[in-house]
Amino acid sequence: MSNSVLFGVLGGMGPLATLDLLQKIIEITPAKRDQEHLPVVTWNVPQIPDRQKAYAGTGDSPLPELLHAIEQLNKLNVSYIAIPCNTVHYWYPQLAQASKASILHIVDIATEYIASLQPRPKKVGIIATKVTLDTGMYQQRLAKLGIEAIILSEHELNELFIPGCYAVKRGENVLGGELFQELATALIDRGAEKLILGCTEIPVALKTIDSPLLSLSIDPAYALAEHCVKLWQQAQGTEQLVID
Amino acid sequence: MSNSVLFGVLGGMGPLATLDLLQKIIEITPAKRDQEHLPVVTWNVPQIPDRQKAYAGTGDSPLPELLHAIEQLNKLNVSYIAIPCNTVHYWYPQLAQASKASILHIVDIATEYIASLQPRPKKVGIIATKVTLDTGMYQQRLAKLGIEAIILSEHELNELFIPGCYAVKRGENVLGGELFQELATALIDRGAEKLILGCTEIPVALKTIDSPLLSLSIDPAYALAEHCVKLWQQAQGTEQLVID
Repeated sequence: MSNSVLFGVLGGMGPLATLDLLQKIIEITPAKRDQEHLPVVTWNVPQIPDRQKAYAGTGDSPLPELLHAIEQLNKLNVSYIAIPCNTVHYWYPQLAQASKASILHIVDIATEYIASLQPRPKKVGIIATKVTLDTGMYQQRLAKLGIEAIILSEHELNELFIPGCYAVKRGENVLGGELFQELATALIDRGAEKLILGCTEIPVALKTIDSPLLSLSIDPAYALAEHCVKLWQQAQGTEQLVID
Repeated sequence: MSNSVLFGVLGGMGPLATLDLLQKIIEITPAKRDQEHLPVVTWNVPQIPDRQKAYAGTGDSPLPELLHAIEQLNKLNVSYIAIPCNTVHYWYPQLAQASKASILHIVDIATEYIASLQPRPKKVGIIATKVTLDTGMYQQRLAKLGIEAIILSEHELNELFIPGCYAVKRGENVLGGELFQELATALIDRGAEKLILGCTEIPVALKTIDSPLLSLSIDPAYALAEHCVKLWQQAQGTEQLVID
């Protein structure tokens, strides 16, 4: 019964967004019994300094706690590590260097997903933290696909995105959803054909309010979940997952 | 930022029931930000031989895989281990003996919860696996409280419970919910004032169909989640959680 593959999840940022990834993995997996589901170990330890504040220079670095989590997951001999938090990929190089297990890069995987869309959108809006937007992790990859990125203004970040993000973190998903929906609408008004939900709190909140904009959304956490399921199926030698 | 307490969850039986416990822990915790949520490491590895078949003598024992999971969680120095599966508590003595971390006993915790109910019910129905019912883990504890247990017949187990349980395990939560609701109704007809949902698949399925019988139900996974949150708050020295 030992597993050929064991998935590690470095979560906690936030804890609910971590469960959202785990839920998506289970929903996507075409399992007929317990044993056909992915083996996943999740480090959902949210005692990590705030990533947005660290980047803004107003809080401690999350790196020591992130490296500790990577070390703990590697102790269990995980094969891959998924991190359901876009922002934390700012520290990806240091984490990848410290990890024996391969760390799946959520932005690379989301970009592959976007590249596969038919028809490929010409303009894509990005809702994300200032860290994610400033580093250009999405914009650079979209540019290589010939896609124009439409991003949040400083005002939208401060007045809508940040309050929305922290609302979800304290469990006020409806308020968060409404704020994110306002942002999404603004990006569509500026020409976005699709929206990247570039912070894992966003799909959780939009789902809570059953937002119609979910149909225009690209959810990197979903792409990450799908990628994990494909890796699992490849390891099992079963047929490729057909995603509708 | 290191934690005074780290929770371990031995999950995978099934994987969705494990997420249900994690979700309950987050919902119950009165956190205002990520860092106030419980630090939880979850071993959600469902490649464990089927517990019901092992007990029936028609499958391998799950014990080696369970002991491996306990060993892995202890490697990470967890303080407590919660197991969101009633059936597997049949093997509790062997797991407790092998674990440095204290293993929280779901049936003990559910019984404490029942003992605190005002008014205390006189007759309680138990929906659970044959393993859980045969070993009398709930009946013996209820008897000490002067509560009569009303359990499933062999026919109900085979024709309704087992199909319901495996339906949830393959993702057919509506079918599972309908079968469990039929069982719950039968136990109420035989005099049960409250129902113990003594298998972690049951609340998942009844929630899916939004069953009115949830209001009469005692969910051991909820009691376990609440117990974890209380332990966390005690460790933090914060005020006791008030559950409505």
